Amino acid sequence: MKTILPLILLLWAFAAPSHVPTQAQAARADPPTYSNDGKLVRPDDYREWVYLTSGLGMTYGPAGTGRAPMFDNVFVTRESYRQFMQTGTWPEKTMFILEIRGAETNVSINNGGQTQGGIVALEAEVKDRSRFPETGWGYFNFGGAPNLQGAVAALPTSATCYSCHRQNTAVENTFVQFYPTLMEVARRMGTIKPAYDPAHKVQ
Amino acid sequence: MKTILPLILLLWAFAAPSHVPTQAQAARADPPTYSNDGKLVRPDDYREWVYLTSGLGMTYGPAGTGRAPMFDNVFVTRESYRQFMQTGTWPEKTMFILEIRGAETNVSINNGGQTQGGIVALEAEVKDRSRFPETGWGYFNFGGAPNLQGAVAALPTSATCYSCHRQNTAVENTFVQFYPTLMEVARRMGTIKPAYDPAHKVQ
Repeated sequence: MKTILPLILLLWAFAAPSHVPTQAQAARADPPTYSNDGKLVRPDDYREWVYLTSGLGMTYGPAGTGRAPMFDNVFVTRESYRQFMQTGTWPEKTMFILEIRGAETNVSINNGGQTQGGIVALEAEVKDRSRFPETGWGYFNFGGAPNLQGAVAALPTSATCYSCHRQNTAVENTFVQFYPTLMEVARRMGTIKPAYDPAHKVQ
Repeated sequence: MKTILPLILLLWAFAAPSHVPTQAQAARADPPTYSNDGKLVRPDDYREWVYLTSGLGMTYGPAGTGRAPMFDNVFVTRESYRQFMQTGTWPEKTMFILEIRGAETNVSINNGGQTQGGIVALEAEVKDRSRFPETGWGYFNFGGAPNLQGAVAALPTSATCYSCHRQNTAVENTFVQFYPTLMEVARRMGTIKPAYDPAHKVQ
């Protein structure tokens, strides 16, 4: 886990609340939810949120480190997704989950390429100006499987995810440039940041 | 497109109806829906269905064909997903969408691995014994982008997807062996087919 956490933190660009509760959510508060001591509770139903994209072996630093490539899947809360599709912006309380999974080869009848294996790590991003007055967005690391934390405090603002998301994202603090269906909406709505440069690299 | 369609057909293992309409679905019939002449209507909201998994460069035939690897994303209707999570089986009217997307390199700050690009093709699988009495499942090909069809008839039962799904899938006619969160449920519920052999290859 230690070797991949910096990558995971860098991968981070996410966050959305659901104001229209589904049947399963009707009996509980919409995400994001917090424990009494202010920690973000790990949602158990994020696989029913809206899927945004997957990458395989994404690397924001130098490529070719020899690290085994992993899949990253991104999910966002449903009502925020719908608002983004209409406006090209994220409402307050938007929440994203970044799920990292192993990449497997030769599973069953598959002879080429890679398929998704077990969960490796889980992270979150939340847009909440009242809770994160300095940055507007909070970043959370639920740790690595099989020891995912049930609730975690926001990472300190010195963590690289804060600056990376602020500096390198296409829309607000989110990597919409990697979400094909959303990038089209942002273009149409004119919500891509003026400073966003698709050719920019971190180094 | 012609070169990848056999692959896409082989990739196929999917399908689910939503009995709990979301806000967006409330005004219309749950999927699957059919035109007056019996064609399956391409759903415009499948990206809000439940995501099951992604693969990159999956190949059921011989590997190393030199074909550019593509991402495949699988979505299933929400209520069927919930029923599967409780029972390990798919209810009648279950519907899956297989979305094929291009794989891109070096997008924005990404220096390694691949991210998802534009849509390439779209297919569907539906479980419906009354509509497909011979096979129990129907397979559909909406074609290639940018000329996706709005509604299509089921492929003839001579298409390879029918036999491939019947012979090589872990649960019913669906490739649950590639859906990590569902395979766990099928194991627990004892719904993996007795004949399923994880070491079996097509050739």
